[in-house]
Parts: sequence; structure tokens; C-alpha cells
Amino acid sequence: MAKALRQQQQQIVAANREDVERARAGALEASFIDRLELNPKRIEMMATAIEEVIALPDPIGRVDKSWRRPNGLKVGKQRIPLGVIGIIYEARPNVTSDAAALCLKSGNGVMLKGGSDAIASNRAVFRALRAGLEASPLPKNAIDALAFVDTTDREAVKEMLSFDAYIDVIIPRGGKGLIRFVSEHSRIPVIKHDEGVCHVVVDGSAPARMVDEIVLNSKTQRVSVCNAAEAIVFLRSAVDPHLDRVLRKLGDAGVKLHLCPQSLEHAQNAGIDASWYAPASPEDFGREFLAMEVAIRVVADLDAAVAHIDEYGSRHTESIVTNDFEQAQQFVDLVDSSCVMVNASTRFADGNQLGLGAEIGISTTRMHAYGPMGIEELTTTKFVVFGSGQTRT
Amino acid sequence: MAKALRQQQQQIVAANREDVERARAGALEASFIDRLELNPKRIEMMATAIEEVIALPDPIGRVDKSWRRPNGLKVGKQRIPLGVIGIIYEARPNVTSDAAALCLKSGNGVMLKGGSDAIASNRAVFRALRAGLEASPLPKNAIDALAFVDTTDREAVKEMLSFDAYIDVIIPRGGKGLIRFVSEHSRIPVIKHDEGVCHVVVDGSAPARMVDEIVLNSKTQRVSVCNAAEAIVFLRSAVDPHLDRVLRKLGDAGVKLHLCPQSLEHAQNAGIDASWYAPASPEDFGREFLAMEVAIRVVADLDAAVAHIDEYGSRHTESIVTNDFEQAQQFVDLVDSSCVMVNASTRFADGNQLGLGAEIGISTTRMHAYGPMGIEELTTTKFVVFGSGQTRT
Repeated sequence: MAKALRQQQQQIVAANREDVERARAGALEASFIDRLELNPKRIEMMATAIEEVIALPDPIGRVDKSWRRPNGLKVGKQRIPLGVIGIIYEARPNVTSDAAALCLKSGNGVMLKGGSDAIASNRAVFRALRAGLEASPLPKNAIDALAFVDTTDREAVKEMLSFDAYIDVIIPRGGKGLIRFVSEHSRIPVIKHDEGVCHVVVDGSAPARMVDEIVLNSKTQRVSVCNAAEAIVFLRSAVDPHLDRVLRKLGDAGVKLHLCPQSLEHAQNAGIDASWYAPASPEDFGREFLAMEVAIRVVADLDAAVAHIDEYGSRHTESIVTNDFEQAQQFVDLVDSSCVMVNASTRFADGNQLGLGAEIGISTTRMHAYGPMGIEELTTTKFVVFGSGQTRT
Repeated sequence: MAKALRQQQQQIVAANREDVERARAGALEASFIDRLELNPKRIEMMATAIEEVIALPDPIGRVDKSWRRPNGLKVGKQRIPLGVIGIIYEARPNVTSDAAALCLKSGNGVMLKGGSDAIASNRAVFRALRAGLEASPLPKNAIDALAFVDTTDREAVKEMLSFDAYIDVIIPRGGKGLIRFVSEHSRIPVIKHDEGVCHVVVDGSAPARMVDEIVLNSKTQRVSVCNAAEAIVFLRSAVDPHLDRVLRKLGDAGVKLHLCPQSLEHAQNAGIDASWYAPASPEDFGREFLAMEVAIRVVADLDAAVAHIDEYGSRHTESIVTNDFEQAQQFVDLVDSSCVMVNASTRFADGNQLGLGAEIGISTTRMHAYGPMGIEELTTTKFVVFGSGQTRT
């Protein structure tokens, strides 16, 4: 598959040009067109990504745990594929090859449904992947695509979501509208990849440099992604040692500050550049800015910070910066999110960064896999039982 | 909760009498009424079952695995509750207390929806459980019930299935109709507990006594349950050493035999009592008899047996009786069912028997938990990350 992508690079780039021109004619945003565009360098990255997936250890057949019963039965849980995985995604054509490789490596069949904006690119990538499969001993139908259906997008998705006899799980990757549509219409179990409203909580005991680095990195290292921080919560203990300095650093980095009444007062008293901040509206807490903007709030203590996260967070990723052992433990136990961190940037909430190898995405569904999903999370287990003639009495 | 059940035994028995009388007036089957009926002995069993759940180790907070990244981040997966679990079940009122105890022990809230046939009994059991909770430091709303809704049953279930903001997972336990209805209408992830069409495969290398004991036990030890065998598949190698004898033993035990053409010929040639058997109709393979009846088929070899299971099985539980090492390994790898066994009765496909402690049921959904589900399967994991100031570059 990696070889075929490289071999068919010209055809893929040509097909992609069609999609990009249509997007330009439709006056779509520059960031959208950037995600859509493929060039030889990006196709090489897609091929390399496939090779990285190939290099991962095979999860199938592994017995994760086993035990012996008093009657001598040996019981184990052996990893098996989920079955057929349906991936429904939007504009990025690299998802076509990434998802296909991850599903195949984990022993699954995959049914791909990309967005209509990338239809020519997805077809070209899919043709290359199929050509690769056909040159291998694997069944070529292990990868299939709803890339050619002649209906409007949502109709095709709706039909796909009714195939509960053929597809075992649906993973939607995309905007809120897509996720909601899939959840409402699917008869197949869904693992959602929903938005991230991530928080960094700052405690007074944390060293200044660590606070600055983690807050800045969580917010600004890459703003368009689900694991970027959208709000910074200062415990009262952190106001004197950290608040003014952090506001200044964020503003200086070009981040627009949406301030709660208490932090607003501090910003005014500290004489921070008034163009950097504005009073936070109620909707600013819980907002996924995906931009150089952040909400700032001062709360009394850890319990209040946890309550804030419960109310406004999306249960994706939260991090506390603290040197208080007890508080760190409490934060980890009390915060109900898929990733809970101490003294680390929220940007580490990523399968690759956490050591799972390549990731299919970050699940916000509690069932089956919660948080970053690697290939192991694309498998399930069956019970295997070895006996010597045991019967039940 | 166990104490309160014992204390309110009289009220529960009185309420149950209402349900039983209504069922008798409605001329429902004796087996149905038997499942519905509560008496002091059965209430004591319900209380004891709660105490057994209490004694299980607490799964919450346990870090199942952890590792260290090259940048020093310590990453772990810590067990957390699923959230709120919706249990939708039919006539057995003991499910009310069993499910409530299992969900509570695993840190979850539970929303119970029992069948209308057991409504008075379920209300009485629920009141006792609530009284128990109220005497404890736990929040009484951790257990709630849709036992009092004044609508037809299906309407109430439909409404419950739309509460995706409040309920994290739905577990339906009951007949095919209920399972299908729930799957079609739920916006909440569903873990199905569907039928079991279990197979025992017999190979020529197996000792006669082991074949007889496992076949008989799998079929007859309890016929009304999902892990009872519904078909016995003989490899050609097993025909001479085992077929006639097993047919005779099954017939002698009162099991009606539905025979494929080849086994039919053998039964006739062996002079087996003609009242014990009949030619199998095509529907007899894949049928969940839940009775003293079994389908018998002779196939060429292991591959043909696996193909038979793929076509007619329900992916619940299959067992092979063999002394051929290679065949045993192949069977375990090739059969795609939630429990695959060698030389053991299918009746062991049960959370308690396999060592999970009490079980909430047997999942036939591949996602999240496949096969018997104990309290661990009522939990999920979150990532916990301990750093020392790491940021992403």
C-alpha cells in the first residue's frame, strides 16, 4: 500500500487538484484548503505513516491475561479484531490511508466514507491502496469505500449507518454536526471523536517556569486541535504568585484573553495592555476556540476547579500544574476526563505521544475505549478455555 | 440493601403475589410464572447475592498498566466507572437487585427498567434497595428506576433510550424482540445480551468418556439457558468411534434428535429407537431450542465445522472435544465466538464459572466487552499522566 501510494503519486496529485479547485471556487477557508491539499511531500508522509503502522507489534492472538480455575480450567482473554470498522470523516484525504492501515494492521475490515469535498482525492488514494492490497496475499475487500456512491453525502452516511449486519463499529471523525448526525442515526455502536474543551489548572505551589511553559504550550503550540487548552483555571493560591505574569505572557504571545471578573480586575490593576483582553461572556467558558484565544477564571480551591471542569469541560483532557502531592492525587481521582495529567502539557493527549503508536483518534465515548485510541483499541477479546473434560454440576 | 431486602421480605412477597395472580389470570406459561415468583427463600438468595457482590474486590482506581515514555512522562490507565448504566429486562425480579448491586459495586449509577409483568415486585424490591441506600452514606439516587411510569412499556423504553445526555450505556436482557427494539431505537451505546446457538464439535481423537460427558452436560445440564448446546457437529473422524454411541446416550437421556442425512442413516443402521429422532429441517441448524432437543450434523473436517459455526452459530460459545493438539489450536484461532473452548462443557460460559465473580450477563456485542461480563466490564479506563513539566515541541 505504501509502495502503491508512491507509484501513483501523480494520479493522486492530479485528482486532488480537482478537489482543491472546487474548494477555491466555493471560496472555502484557507485552513480548510490547506487540510485538503496533497503534494508529493504529503503523499510521502502518508506512505511513511503506513510503514510506521506496519512496524507496530501485531495485537491479534495475544493473550492479555489468563488464570486457572479451581476445577483446572485454564481461562484466557485472547485479542481478536472488532470485525468491520466504518470510518466516517471529513476533509483530510490522509485519513483514508491512515485509517485503512490501522484497521488492517489490527485485523479488521474497513469501510471508508470520506467527505464529498475530498471525493476525487479519496478515490485516487483508495485506488492506490487497493492496488497495493491486490499485489499482496490479503483479501482486497478488506478495505472498501463508499467513495463512489451517487447520492448526497448524508443519504449515503445514513444508509451506511443502517448496515448493522455488516459493520461492527462506526468511528466518526469530524465536526459537531457530523458527530451528532451519526449518533442519532446509527444502529451500529459508535465511538465518537468529539470536541475537546481542555483545561489547565494552576496551583500556587507550582514553580513559575513550569506554570508558564505548560500554560503556553497547552494553549499555543497548535491551536486548531482538540487537545489544545481552551481555559486556564487559577486556584486562589495561584493568583499572587502566577496570575499577572501568565496573563502577560499569554497576551504577549498573541493570545486574546477572556477574563472572569476577578482576573479582569487583576489585569486592570496590573496595567496589562487593554487590547489583549475582554470580559468573558458566559459562553466563553466551555467554548472550543481552536484559535489564539483563551478563557481565564479564578476559583477558590481544587473542589471549585473540579466543579468548573464538570460544568464546562468536554471530558477530553485536563492538566493541573502543582507541587502539592495531595492536590495532585485528588485531581487525578476527582476529574472525570479521558486524560488527566499532572505537570504536563494537554498537547500530550495523543496516541503517539502517550506511546500507543499511531492513533485512529481520541474517543470521547466512555464505552470500549476512552481517550486516545491505538491499534489495540481497534480490537476486542474472546475468552479461550482449555479443559481436560470438565463438566458443570 | 441486603438487610433491607430481608427486612421488607413480607411486603415484597405480597407485591409479588399481585404480579403472579395477574400472570395466572392471563394464563401465562408455567415456566414464566416460575421465573416471576418470589418467596422467602428466593429473597434470601437475592440478599446473599448482594453480599457476594460486596465481597468482590473494588475495580475502581486500579491502574491496570502503566509505562514510562522516553521524555519521562509516566502514563497509566486507571479504572473508572462507565457512568450511568441503563438495564432493561423482562420478567425476573431478582435482576432488579442483582443489577443494582453490580452497577453500584463498580461505581456506576443505574437506571432500572423492568418488565410490566413484574411491576409490583420490582417496585417493592426497588423500595427496599432504596431504603438500604438511604441508611448508607451513598447518594440514594445512585439507584433509580423507571418502575412507576404511567405509559405502555415500549413507550417508556423508547423515552429512556433517548436520554443520551444522562445514560452512558444500555444493557438489554431479554428476548429477541426486546433486544431488536432496543438496538433500533437507542441513541445510547448498547451492549446486547442476545441468544446463544452453541455448538459442540466432536473429533475422532477424543476419549469416548470425555465426548459423552461434555456433549451430555452441554446439552442437558440446564436446557433453558443461552450457554446450553443446540447442535453437535461430528467430524468424519468421529463418526466410527463416537456417533452411534452419542446418539444413543442423548436419546436415552430424553433428548429429541434432529439428524442430518448422514447421521440419520447411521441412526437407522444402528437400530436406534425411531421415536428418538427425525430428519433435521434446514431451520433446525441455527435454532435456539432451549429444550431437550438438539441438531446433529456430520461434516468432513475441522474447516467444514468452522464453516458450519460461521453460518449457523450466534457467536456465543463453541467447544471442541479432541485430543489432537494441532486441531485444538486451530479451533481456538479460527472460531469467531465470544467463548471458544477445548474439552470443556459450553455451560462454563458464565462469569461466575470463569472466575469473574458475579455476572451482569453475557455480551454478544463485540465492542467494549465480548462474552461474560463481571464488574470489571462495567468500568472503563482513563489515562493518567504524571509529568515534571514536559511540554510538546
